[in-house]
Amino acid sequence: MPVHPIEYRYGSEEMRSIFDYRRRIRLMAKIEAELAKVEADLGVIPREAADSIAKAAEQVDWEDVLRWERVTRHETMALVKAIAEKAGKHGEYVHLGATSNDILDTATAIQVSEASEILKKKLISLTRVMIQRGRESLEYIAPARTHGMIAIPIPFGFKFAVWVSMMRRNIERFIQASKDASKGKLSGAVGTMAALGEIGPEVQRRLMHSLKIGEAEISTQVVPRDGLAYLIEVMALISSCLDLIANEIRNLHRSEIGEVVEPFNVKDQTGSSTMPHKINPINSEKVCGLARIMRGLVIPSLENVVLEHERDLTNSSVERVVIPEAFLILDEQLKALSFVMKNLALRPDAMRSNIEKTRGLIMAERLMMVLARKGFGRQNAHEIVRRLSLKAMRERKHLKEEALSDEVVSRNLSREELDEIFDPATYVITGKRIALSVFDSVEKFLDSLEGEST
Amino acid sequence: MPVHPIEYRYGSEEMRSIFDYRRRIRLMAKIEAELAKVEADLGVIPREAADSIAKAAEQVDWEDVLRWERVTRHETMALVKAIAEKAGKHGEYVHLGATSNDILDTATAIQVSEASEILKKKLISLTRVMIQRGRESLEYIAPARTHGMIAIPIPFGFKFAVWVSMMRRNIERFIQASKDASKGKLSGAVGTMAALGEIGPEVQRRLMHSLKIGEAEISTQVVPRDGLAYLIEVMALISSCLDLIANEIRNLHRSEIGEVVEPFNVKDQTGSSTMPHKINPINSEKVCGLARIMRGLVIPSLENVVLEHERDLTNSSVERVVIPEAFLILDEQLKALSFVMKNLALRPDAMRSNIEKTRGLIMAERLMMVLARKGFGRQNAHEIVRRLSLKAMRERKHLKEEALSDEVVSRNLSREELDEIFDPATYVITGKRIALSVFDSVEKFLDSLEGEST
Amino acid sequence: MPVHPIEYRYGSEEMRSIFDYRRRIRLMAKIEAELAKVEADLGVIPREAADSIAKAAEQVDWEDVLRWERVTRHETMALVKAIAEKAGKHGEYVHLGATSNDILDTATAIQVSEASEILKKKLISLTRVMIQRGRESLEYIAPARTHGMIAIPIPFGFKFAVWVSMMRRNIERFIQASKDASKGKLSGAVGTMAALGEIGPEVQRRLMHSLKIGEAEISTQVVPRDGLAYLIEVMALISSCLDLIANEIRNLHRSEIGEVVEPFNVKDQTGSSTMPHKINPINSEKVCGLARIMRGLVIPSLENVVLEHERDLTNSSVERVVIPEAFLILDEQLKALSFVMKNLALRPDAMRSNIEKTRGLIMAERLMMVLARKGFGRQNAHEIVRRLSLKAMRERKHLKEEALSDEVVSRNLSREELDEIFDPATYVITGKRIALSVFDSVEKFLDSLEGEST
Amino acid sequence: MPVHPIEYRYGSEEMRSIFDYRRRIRLMAKIEAELAKVEADLGVIPREAADSIAKAAEQVDWEDVLRWERVTRHETMALVKAIAEKAGKHGEYVHLGATSNDILDTATAIQVSEASEILKKKLISLTRVMIQRGRESLEYIAPARTHGMIAIPIPFGFKFAVWVSMMRRNIERFIQASKDASKGKLSGAVGTMAALGEIGPEVQRRLMHSLKIGEAEISTQVVPRDGLAYLIEVMALISSCLDLIANEIRNLHRSEIGEVVEPFNVKDQTGSSTMPHKINPINSEKVCGLARIMRGLVIPSLENVVLEHERDLTNSSVERVVIPEAFLILDEQLKALSFVMKNLALRPDAMRSNIEKTRGLIMAERLMMVLARKGFGRQNAHEIVRRLSLKAMRERKHLKEEALSDEVVSRNLSREELDEIFDPATYVITGKRIALSVFDSVEKFLDSLEGEST
Repeated sequence: MPVHPIEYRYGSEEMRSIFDYRRRIRLMAKIEAELAKVEADLGVIPREAADSIAKAAEQVDWEDVLRWERVTRHETMALVKAIAEKAGKHGEYVHLGATSNDILDTATAIQVSEASEILKKKLISLTRVMIQRGRESLEYIAPARTHGMIAIPIPFGFKFAVWVSMMRRNIERFIQASKDASKGKLSGAVGTMAALGEIGPEVQRRLMHSLKIGEAEISTQVVPRDGLAYLIEVMALISSCLDLIANEIRNLHRSEIGEVVEPFNVKDQTGSSTMPHKINPINSEKVCGLARIMRGLVIPSLENVVLEHERDLTNSSVERVVIPEAFLILDEQLKALSFVMKNLALRPDAMRSNIEKTRGLIMAERLMMVLARKGFGRQNAHEIVRRLSLKAMRERKHLKEEALSDEVVSRNLSREELDEIFDPATYVITGKRIALSVFDSVEKFLDSLEGEST
Repeated sequence: MPVHPIEYRYGSEEMRSIFDYRRRIRLMAKIEAELAKVEADLGVIPREAADSIAKAAEQVDWEDVLRWERVTRHETMALVKAIAEKAGKHGEYVHLGATSNDILDTATAIQVSEASEILKKKLISLTRVMIQRGRESLEYIAPARTHGMIAIPIPFGFKFAVWVSMMRRNIERFIQASKDASKGKLSGAVGTMAALGEIGPEVQRRLMHSLKIGEAEISTQVVPRDGLAYLIEVMALISSCLDLIANEIRNLHRSEIGEVVEPFNVKDQTGSSTMPHKINPINSEKVCGLARIMRGLVIPSLENVVLEHERDLTNSSVERVVIPEAFLILDEQLKALSFVMKNLALRPDAMRSNIEKTRGLIMAERLMMVLARKGFGRQNAHEIVRRLSLKAMRERKHLKEEALSDEVVSRNLSREELDEIFDPATYVITGKRIALSVFDSVEKFLDSLEGEST
Repeated sequence: MPVHPIEYRYGSEEMRSIFDYRRRIRLMAKIEAELAKVEADLGVIPREAADSIAKAAEQVDWEDVLRWERVTRHETMALVKAIAEKAGKHGEYVHLGATSNDILDTATAIQVSEASEILKKKLISLTRVMIQRGRESLEYIAPARTHGMIAIPIPFGFKFAVWVSMMRRNIERFIQASKDASKGKLSGAVGTMAALGEIGPEVQRRLMHSLKIGEAEISTQVVPRDGLAYLIEVMALISSCLDLIANEIRNLHRSEIGEVVEPFNVKDQTGSSTMPHKINPINSEKVCGLARIMRGLVIPSLENVVLEHERDLTNSSVERVVIPEAFLILDEQLKALSFVMKNLALRPDAMRSNIEKTRGLIMAERLMMVLARKGFGRQNAHEIVRRLSLKAMRERKHLKEEALSDEVVSRNLSREELDEIFDPATYVITGKRIALSVFDSVEKFLDSLEGEST
Repeated sequence: MPVHPIEYRYGSEEMRSIFDYRRRIRLMAKIEAELAKVEADLGVIPREAADSIAKAAEQVDWEDVLRWERVTRHETMALVKAIAEKAGKHGEYVHLGATSNDILDTATAIQVSEASEILKKKLISLTRVMIQRGRESLEYIAPARTHGMIAIPIPFGFKFAVWVSMMRRNIERFIQASKDASKGKLSGAVGTMAALGEIGPEVQRRLMHSLKIGEAEISTQVVPRDGLAYLIEVMALISSCLDLIANEIRNLHRSEIGEVVEPFNVKDQTGSSTMPHKINPINSEKVCGLARIMRGLVIPSLENVVLEHERDLTNSSVERVVIPEAFLILDEQLKALSFVMKNLALRPDAMRSNIEKTRGLIMAERLMMVLARKGFGRQNAHEIVRRLSLKAMRERKHLKEEALSDEVVSRNLSREELDEIFDPATYVITGKRIALSVFDSVEKFLDSLEGEST
C-alpha cells in the first residue's frame, strides 16, 4: 500500500513516529489544551473550560478531524471543531485568540525539535565511532591519492581525522540551525497579537515555555521561514559530508584497490544475482544516492522563504513534503553509514601492496625535498626527480634504483639516506600527530555536548 | 500512520495505485513470467516451465518477497526466490539470463509509461478547459499589467491563449520525454547480453513488445538515466508553467484587484479561522507551492545521470523517492488547477472598474502612437504624452481631459478622435484575433492527439 | 568586450577589485613572499632568500604568469616559476615545502575574508536603514494581508520589524559562515605536512597569523569544502530574505495598492518606452531576479563538498565561477535594496484608503473576539460574524452598519462599543510594542558588532 | 581585470564573441534597422526614414548607449535615443510600434540561435570522434564493473557505444529545444500588437523572417520563458552526460586501474608541483566540475518561467547571467572533452591485466549459466558458483582450478569446456554486435543532420 520509501524503507521507526500524521494531529490537540491552560492561568478563560478542553483534546483522533475537514476544508478548523464537539459547553473556549497557524507552526516547531534531538545523538555517536576507527588505523600506512592518482603515503587514520573535524563543525551548525527552526508562535492572524491584546506576549511566552520550545521574536501569521530553510541547508550540507565519506569508502572498496570491505553476511546475503562472488558497497552507495535528494530539498526550502505580505499559503504544501523527507532521509543515511563505519573491514595488507606497486614513485616528493635541502634548490630538485620518475615509469623500475644509478643523485645521497627516504613510515609522523590532536579535541567537544544534555 | 503527503493527500488514487509498492512487486513478477514465456517461445526453456512460472508469479505477494529480502538483503533475488519456491521443480528456470536490473528497469519503464498516460490525459483536458474559458472571456476587456503596474487594455481571454500555447508545447515535450523514459531492457549484467548470447537481442525485443514498452537501444546493467532525467526536467517545466498560471490567478484574486474568485463553498467551507469573510485562493497557492518541490527534484535526477562504469547503485534510492513523488505531485497540481479553471468566477465589472481607475492613463500608449503618426514623430509624441500623464497623475484628472485642454494636442486631435483613442474596446482587436487563432490551432492539435490514442 | 554582467553591471567596484583575476595573482605572490619570510624566521631558508623572494613577488604580474602557464599548463607552478625567475639564485627557495593548493586555498580564504567584511558592513547598514524606516512608519496603519487578501490592520512599521529580526539572524549566520570559509592551509600535498615535517604546524600557524586569517584544523591537499558550501548556503538564504523584502515592495507598489513607490527620477528616467507614465519597481525586481541565481549556486557548492581521496580537481572550476559570482551578486542586491529602502516613498493615504475599501470587514476578527468574550463563545461568534460579513459583501454595505442593524449584535453591543471596535488605531497597540522592542534589541546588537570591529 | 572565468578561461572566442555585450548592442541596432525596413516595405514609415535609420544603426556604439543609459536608466530607450540622435529628422521613426522587449527578446533569440549552431556542430563532432574511438577499441577486452567491482568482460568500445547512443538522444533534444528558445517577437507592450494594429502580425512575420529566426506563436510583453528554461534544462542534461563520460575516464585513469591516460605533454607540462611523475586527468576533472555549474543553472531558469501578468522584470537579471554562462560553460566542456577523446591513450595491456587479477572470477556468471543449462537449474548453479568463488577468493586461487577440482563441476564439464568458459573473448560477441549497430545507426543520423545543414 505505501508509495513513498520513507513509509517503509528509509529512516528509523523512532523518527517516523514523530512525523506520523496522526501524531501531528494529537500534538496540535495538545497545544490547544496547553493554550487553554495558559489562558486559564491568566484569567482569560474559566479554569473548568481549560479542564474540559484538556480532556476533549486527549480524546480527539484523526478520524474526527478528517470527518470535519471534509466539511470545513480547513485542517485546523476541523481540529478545533472536533475538540469543541467533545468539550461540550466549554467548546467555545477552544482556540481562543489563536489563529490556525499558531497551532500549526508550533506543532512543527515541536516536531523539528524532537526530530533534531534524535539526529544530534546519531551525529555524535557516528563521530565517536569514526574517532575510534581512526585511532585504530593510525598505524596503517596507505597511499594518499589526488586526482585519483597515488601521491604520497598517509596514515590511514588521517582520513578519519579529516571527517571527524568536519563532523564537529556540522554538529555545531546543526545545533544552531535546529534551535533557529524550533520556534513556536501565538501571535494571531498577522503577528500583532491583536486578538489577545496586551496580554498576548505573556500568553505566547508561557505557552512556548510549557511546550519546551523557543518563541519567535516576531512573526506574521507564520514564523518567518528563514529558520526552516537554514536548517534544511545545514542538513543538506551534513548529508553531502556523509556523501563524501561514503564515496571514499566506495572508492577504496574497488576491486583494484581493496583497502576496505563493507560488512557482508557471507552465508546468506546475495551480492549480485548473476555474480555471486561480488561484495558490493551497497550501504555506502545508498548514502551517496540519498545525498542527492537532500541537496534537491534545499531549493524548495529557499523558495519558501519568500512569502507575501503577512503570509501566503505556498509554504504549506512544500513543508508537508520537505520536513519529514529531510529528517527521515538524513536519519537513514546516518543509520547506514554508522553500520558501515562500525563494521567496515580495513585491509592494511592491500594498503601496503598498493604503495609497493608504485615502485618508489610515492616517495618522489620526499626525494625532491631532500635534494632541495642538499643545495639543489627546489626548481632543480623538481626537475631531477621528474626526470628520474618518468624514467622509472618507462622502464618499470623502482625509483630508488634509478636514484642510486643516477650520477648526480648518488654523488649527494648515500644508500642509507636513500633507504630512509624511501621508508614511508618515517614520512607520516607529523600527519599522525595532527590526526591525534583532532581526535582528542573533538572527543572533548562531544563529551561537553553530552554533559550538557544530562 | 502515513508520514508523506503523497500517501493520503496529494495525487489521485489512480496514480497512487501505479506506484503502490505491492503493485510494483506484482509487476516485477509479471515480467519474470513474460520472460519465461518468451524464452519458452524461443526454445530456451521448456514450455511447461514457463507455465509453472506464470502461475507462481501470479501467486507471489509482497509478504513473500519481504520475507525473502530479510534473508538475501536483495530485492530482486528475494522475488526470484519467492517465485521459484512456488514454481516447484521449474523454479530453476525463473529469471534465466536476466540480471536484477533487467526486471527493475523494465518495471519502472512500465510504471512510467502508465503514469504518463494518465498525466497526458489530464494535460489535454486542462488545456481544453482553458481554451473554453478563454473563448468565453475574450470579450471582457481587462487591464494588462507589466511590473505589477497597469499598462494597456487586453482581452481577458488573451491570458488563456498565452497559457494554451504554452501547454501545447508542454504536451509535445511530455510525450517525447515520457517515451524516452519508458524503455525496458533485458541485456544482462553489463549490457552485453552475454548470458543469453546471440539470441539476446531477440529475447529483449519480444519481451518489450509483449509488455508494450520501448526497448533501450543499448544499455549497461541499467538503462542509461538520461531518459528519466529528461522526463523529470520536462515535468518540472510543466509544473513551473502551472505555477505561472496559478500565480496569475492569485494576483488577480487579490482584494484590491478582484478580477477572479476561486471556487468556494460559501455554506460550509472556512476561509480563515479568524477572518470568516475571506475567500482565499488556496488551491492556486497549493499549485504554486508544489512547483517548488518539482523544481527541486530536477537536481537529484540530473546527478543520477552520472553512474560509474557499467552502473553503480546510487540511482536506486534516488528513484524510489523521485519517481512516485514527481508523478503524484504533478498529478495533484493538475487536479487542483483543473478544479480552479473549471469553476473560477471571472469578474468583468472589476476589470472595467480597474481600467477606469487609471483615469485614461491606460490609453497613453495609444495616444502617443496616434500623435506620432500625426507627424509629431515618436520621440516628440513620447515626451508630450509623458508630460500630460504626469500632470494627470499629479492633479488626479483624466488623461483625456488633460489632452483636450492641452493646446498642442487639441490643435491636432478632435474630440471624436480622442473619444476613439480612449475607448479600450477598439484597442484590443488584433489581440482577440491572435488569441482566437491560438485556440483554433491548439484545439486541432489536441484533437489529433486524441485521435491517435483511439 | 565583457560577457558576464558581474564585469560591468552587477556589484560594486570595491567588491569587483577583490576578485579581479590579476589581484588574485598578486595575492598568491604575496603569500609566497610571506611563506619565505616565515621559513626564514624559523631557519628553514636563508634570510636573504626571503628578502629576494619578497622583492620578486612584488614585481610579478599577470602577464608573467600567463606566459609561464602556457608552458606548464599549471597556474601555481607558473607563478612559482615567474617569481623564481625574478629572484635569481634564491629562486630555488620559492614555494619550499608548499603544494599548489596551499597557495590557492589560502588566497581564496583571504579573498573570502575581505569580501565578507564588505558584505557584513552593507548588511549592517541596510538593517539600520530598515530600523529607521520602520520607526518612522510605525504610526501608519495599513491593511495586513494573508493569501493576498486583506485581513486585519497592522502598523506599517511592523513589516520592517519582521525584516529587521530576520536580518539579525542572517548577520549572525553570515559572520559564523564567513569565518568557517576563511581558513588557509600550509599542509602540503595531502595534508600531512610531510614535506616540512615536525616544523609544519608552526609554519602554518605563523603564516596564517601574518595573513590575518584562520587556519584549517586539518586538511587534505585542500581545505575541506564544507566551509565554502556553508557560506554559499548562508548567502543564498540572505539573498532569499532580500527577495522576500523586495517582493513585498513590488506587491505594495502595484497600481491597485500603491502603498509604496520606488525612488524615481521623474525628469529624465524612462519608466517604459511605450507607457511614459509608469513608475516601475525595477530595483526591487532586480533584487528578486538575482536571488534566483543565488539559490542556484547552492547546488554546485554542495556537490563540491564531495571530493575524492585527498582531493580531486573538480572543485576548482566550480569555485572560479561560484565565489566571485556569489559575492558580486549579493553585493548588487544589497546595493539595490539599500537604495530602495532609503528612498522608498511610503503612502499612508493609500494605506488608509485600502483599509476603507473593505467597508469594515477588516475589523471582522475583532468583532468576533468581542462577541466571543461577551458570552457567545468562539464558535457562535465566528458564525455570527461570518454571516454578517458575507451579507455586507453581498450588499456592498459597511460591516458596522450590518452589525448595528443585526438584532443579536445590537442587543449586546452599543454604538460606542462598535465605534471602538471598528477603529483600527486601537487594534494595533500590541503590534507596535512588539516592533519597537525588535528595533531596540537589534540596534543594540548592531552597535555591539560595530564596537567589535573598531 | 576580468573577474569571471568565462571572460578569459572558459569557452571559445567564437562563442564569447556572440555574447559580447557590445555585439548585443549592435544586434539590437540591427533589429531596429530591419524593423524600419519592414515598416517601410509595408508603407508604415517613409522609405528614406528606413534608410537613415539603417545608416544610423550601423554607426551606434556601446559608448553612445551607455551615455544615454546614464540619463534614461533604461537600456533600450538609450539605444533608441542613440540611433535617433544619429538619424536626424528621421529619428522619430525609430522603434515605431515596438516595445523595448520586442528588441531585447529578438536579440536574445538571435544570440541563442547562433550559439546553438556552434554547440550543435561540436556535439556532432564529438560524437563522431567517439564513434571512431569506439570502433578502434571494440577488440580490446576489458573488465566491466558494477558497484565499482569487476563483474564480467566487456568490449572496451562498448562503453563508447553507450555514450554515442546517449549523444544522439541529446542532439535531438538540443535541436528541438534550441528551436523552441529562438523565437523573436514584435507584439508590443503586452503582446496584443495594439500599437501597430491589424498590420502587426505581418510586421512580426516579415521581421523574424528577415532575421532568420522563428516567431512566438503568442507573447505578452515578452516571449514566454518556457522555451529558454527548456533549453537550459537540455543543456544541463547534456552537461551531465559529459560529466558521466569524463567521470568514467577519471575512474579508468586511476593509478590502480590505468586503462586510459589523458593526453599529456611530458616535456613541459607540470602534473603536480610536488609530485613530478603524476599525470592527472585534469581535463576530465574540469568537465565534471563544470557540470555542477550547469545543473545549478536549471533552478533560476525554471523560476524565471513564473512571470506575473503580462511580464515582470525579474527574468532580466537572471538571463544576463544564465544565458552566456550556460553557453560558454557547455562550450568549454565540449572543447575539453573533445581534446581528451581525440588524444586519450587506451591501454589494452592494463585491461587484460585487470581481468587476470580476478583469477577467473570475472567468468563466474558464465560458469553459472553453463551449469544452469547443464541441468542444475539457475538456483543450484548460483549456489555452486557462489561457493566456489568464495573459496577461490579465500585461497587466492583461480576459479577455473577450483572448478576443475570440484567433484560436481568436473563431473559435468570437461577441461575443454572450462577453457572455453574462461576465455573472455568468446563472451563478448553479442556485445560487439550491439555496439557496432549503434555506431552504424548514429553515424547515419549524424550524416543526415549534416546533410540538412548544407
